Parts: sequence; C-alpha cells; structure tokens
Amino acid sequence: MASEFKITRQVEFSETDMAGIMHFSNFFRFMETAEHSFIRSLGLSIAPKNFDPPIGWPRVAASCEYKRPLKFEDNVEVHLKVTSKTEKAITYSFTFRKNGEPEICALGSYTVVCCTIREGRMQATFVPREYAEKIEAAQV
Amino acid sequence: MASEFKITRQVEFSETDMAGIMHFSNFFRFMETAEHSFIRSLGLSIAPKNFDPPIGWPRVAASCEYKRPLKFEDNVEVHLKVTSKTEKAITYSFTFRKNGEPEICALGSYTVVCCTIREGRMQATFVPREYAEKIEAAQV
Amino acid sequence: MASEFKITRQVEFSETDMAGIMHFSNFFRFMETAEHSFIRSLGLSIAPKNFDPPIGWPRVAASCEYKRPLKFEDNVEVHLKVTSKTEKAITYSFTFRKNGEPEICALGSYTVVCCTIREGRMQATFVPREYAEKIEAAQV
Amino acid sequence: MASEFKITRQVEFSETDMAGIMHFSNFFRFMETAEHSFIRSLGLSIAPKNFDPPIGWPRVAASCEYKRPLKFEDNVEVHLKVTSKTEKAITYSFTFRKNGEPEICALGSYTVVCCTIREGRMQATFVPREYAEKIEAAQV
Repeated sequence: MASEFKITRQVEFSETDMAGIMHFSNFFRFMETAEHSFIRSLGLSIAPKNFDPPIGWPRVAASCEYKRPLKFEDNVEVHLKVTSKTEKAITYSFTFRKNGEPEICALGSYTVVCCTIREGRMQATFVPREYAEKIEAAQV
Repeated sequence: MASEFKITRQVEFSETDMAGIMHFSNFFRFMETAEHSFIRSLGLSIAPKNFDPPIGWPRVAASCEYKRPLKFEDNVEVHLKVTSKTEKAITYSFTFRKNGEPEICALGSYTVVCCTIREGRMQATFVPREYAEKIEAAQV
Repeated sequence: MASEFKITRQVEFSETDMAGIMHFSNFFRFMETAEHSFIRSLGLSIAPKNFDPPIGWPRVAASCEYKRPLKFEDNVEVHLKVTSKTEKAITYSFTFRKNGEPEICALGSYTVVCCTIREGRMQATFVPREYAEKIEAAQV
Repeated sequence: MASEFKITRQVEFSETDMAGIMHFSNFFRFMETAEHSFIRSLGLSIAPKNFDPPIGWPRVAASCEYKRPLKFEDNVEVHLKVTSKTEKAITYSFTFRKNGEPEICALGSYTVVCCTIREGRMQATFVPREYAEKIEAAQV
C-alpha cells in the first residue's frame, strides 16, 4: 500500500493576489516543493552535485483543479503520491487541504522526465537506479 | 471563423530557474497575461471598478503541456482562443511559440468562472452581458 | 536587551534563477516572511479580520546588501530585529545566514507604515495599541 | 548630458497582492527588466553566449523608496540612469511613474558587479570592454 508523503506550508502574503487568495500559479510551486521534499526524504536531491553531465527533471505536463481558495496564513497540507513511474518519467499527484479541514482545496498532477543537461540542451535519460529504487520502495 | 488573439512577451531573467529555462509555473502567468490583454482589447477589464459587489474570475481548472523550453530573452507569442463559453464560465486555450519559429513550445488551457466577491467569499454568477457579447463577437 | 526573532527557510527551486542562485528580489520575500512570523509569534496577524476599516502595512523604503549567494536547498536563517518604532511606523532589520555557517549572506532592512485601507486608498494611522505594546515587549 | 533610458510596462494581476497593490518585491523585478532592456538596446546581452567562462552580474546592494502604490493595469514608466561605473561595477538608479502622471511612484537603485561563473562560483572581473564603452557612450 502506498504511504503518502506530505508537507505543510503556510500561504505567504506575497503568494496572494488582489482577489485576496493565493494566485493559481502558486499551487504549482507548492506541488514542486512537495516533490523536492519527497526526494530529499529519500536522502537524495533533484539537483545532485555528483552527476556529469548534470541531470534535471523538466515537466512535460501539469494540471490542477481548484475547489476552494487558499488564503493568507492558511496552513496547507500537500499530499504527494507517485501515480506512475516508467524508465524515464515519473508522474506525481497532489492533494491540497487546509487548516486540518477534510475538504479538498485542490487536486494537481504533473509528469517529470529525467534529462541530462549538456550546454543548455536537455535530453531524456533513464531515471538513475538509486532514485528509481528508493522511489519504488517509498511507495510500497 | 474564430480570429485568434495574441500577445508577444519576452522571457525575463527573474522568470528563469537554475535549470536555465523559464520555470514551468510561469507559463500560467503568461496565459493570464494573454487573457487579461484579450479582455482589455474588448474595451473591458477583468477587474472593473464599477461593479458592486465586485466580480472576479477564479480558475477552476488549468493545464499545460510543455514541448520545448523557453529561455531568457526568447520572444514568446501566446495565442489565445475561447474554446467554450457558458452562462458563468469561459474556457481559454493557449499556444506558445517563440522567436518566430513554427514549432509549438507549449499548449495550455484553463477555465474561469465569473464570481461576485462579498467579504472575501466568492459565488458563481452570470458573465455580465457586455462581457459575454463582446467575447462572442471577438470570436466570430 | 533585544531578543532576536528568527525563522529558518529552505531555498526553493522556483526561487532560483538561471545564474544558479536565489534571485535577489526574493530576499525581500524572505524578510517579509520573517516579519509576518514575528507578528504571529505575538499572537497577532498583519491582516487582522476584526478591523474596520482594515489595516495594512505598506513599505516606504527597503534595502538589501548581498554578501554571499543563496542556493537551492540552502537552509537559511533570517534574524529579525525591530530597529525603530514610532507612532505610525516600524523599521525592521534582517540578517541572513545559511547552513549553520557564521558568515552573513545578506543584510536587509525596511520600514512599514501602518495604514487604514478605504476603497483602495491607504492612509497612515497609529499602530494599534496591542501591536505597539507587544512589539515593544518582545524587544525588551 | 545623460540621456535616460526608459521602459513601459503594465502591472499584471499576478504581481499584485491581497492589499490590492503591486507587491513591493516586484519593483526590483521591474528595475531588472529596465536594466536588461538597456543592455539589449546597446546590442548586447547580460547573458552573452560567447563568453567562456560565462559572466553574470550579481547585485551587491539594492534599495527602493516607495511613494505611491502601483495597481493592476497601471502603465508604469521605469527610467534608468547609470549613476556610477567602475572597472568591475555599475550602479543604476531608477525612477517609477505611472499613467503619464508627473508624480514619482518609486525611486530605486542597485549596484551590479561583473563576475565570471566557474562551477557555480562567482568571482569579480572587469566589465568587458565592449560593454564598458557602449554603456559610457549611451550615457553621454
């Protein structure tokens, strides 16, 4: 059974807009924060310093459904699940809740592809074995 | 036949990330810039000052497919199309190209719902007639 | 003797730029996060819901000296001090360090003025007594 | 006599905050946009592709005085002046006005140092001759 990973994060003033709610684009930043924290929780980094050429994880698709607005100082829980993993790509899904309430505020998802970066050019590559194994283990 | 609306915008340094490309969340900001420019091109504003209660246009869903990265100083064309319009909601789709090249860099879409805002609470309402008529006329 | 207030925050990927370091404008966001956390630590909010008209705290001046860059996943400590308080204004200073190292990464400062907000217009007003007293007490 | 360089830019929705005005950190992004446009107006780029090692221009100090708020859809003029130039550093000052009004909305300034970037490390270097000459010529 997949054990979910989660982070808690408070909505900051600079993340709100003149409508008084968190700007819709910032939900994607929260998702990314959850993803990077998840990788760190495995003892890894999405930007490892010991890879030559360096690797990166560009997104190929991202989406979000917005159910309830997030406001300044809301304490937001972002739950992460790995919903798909292939040799070169990982798909994450995210659930947003706030202030301990059961209602879902947002549902997000995106797919990242592992790439090597050479002189500014990205090329898809295999997810390094250590990453693949630890991500699988974390989800079982 | 729908005539597309488009804006051109240059990628700024602060919109890039350490991977050397525009951060994926900023594509959603570019879409919003195109939407707001489109509404202005109709002689209207998404934040009209003469509505009581004020209206807003929160997103209920947003998505983006990323095909090619955008880099600092790329000149980006964002084409907007209204792909659906109901009494209370509008769906826009967006196509990103850069530097006059024919290849698509990204495809986006989102749906906004017209809402009244009372004491921080949003409630769906009818798209004001002037907006509905001008949006329809622009797309024919 | 003033007891400093501090927060710890990790640099996120979306806060970096193509130079591989945190974008200089984001230091001001970190300062604001420290300020708002400080006010919360007093049991207050910078956006209290029970004020009519509402109050806000616009900045009238802000500055930062950058000594060492911050990078992705750096754990940043931001120390806050109230360096001046008048009837209507508060000046904060901020010191940035990272990863437990003694060297200062940045020194910042800004001054906020307490304002009432009526129909989008801001007017300077007295810092509410509860805020003034608690801020003074926190600094002694 | 120095001829000023200026850009015009419209405040975007995502640049506002829940106080209904442009977030104070975004004034620094506008300054940077003006700086980079200025360098482009000289036929150069702040991120030239033909330098090995690459060069960058980190800020060592930045400041802003805020006089009047900027709001959504305000058309903002940012005037740039080179106020100091040494062998390795350039100081710019910026004046913000809006909607053709004579009043100053904000006054900003920052100093950049030309650096080489090797394996993530920055080291101060001489401003390349072509940059130094064109910047001087533009200001006379």
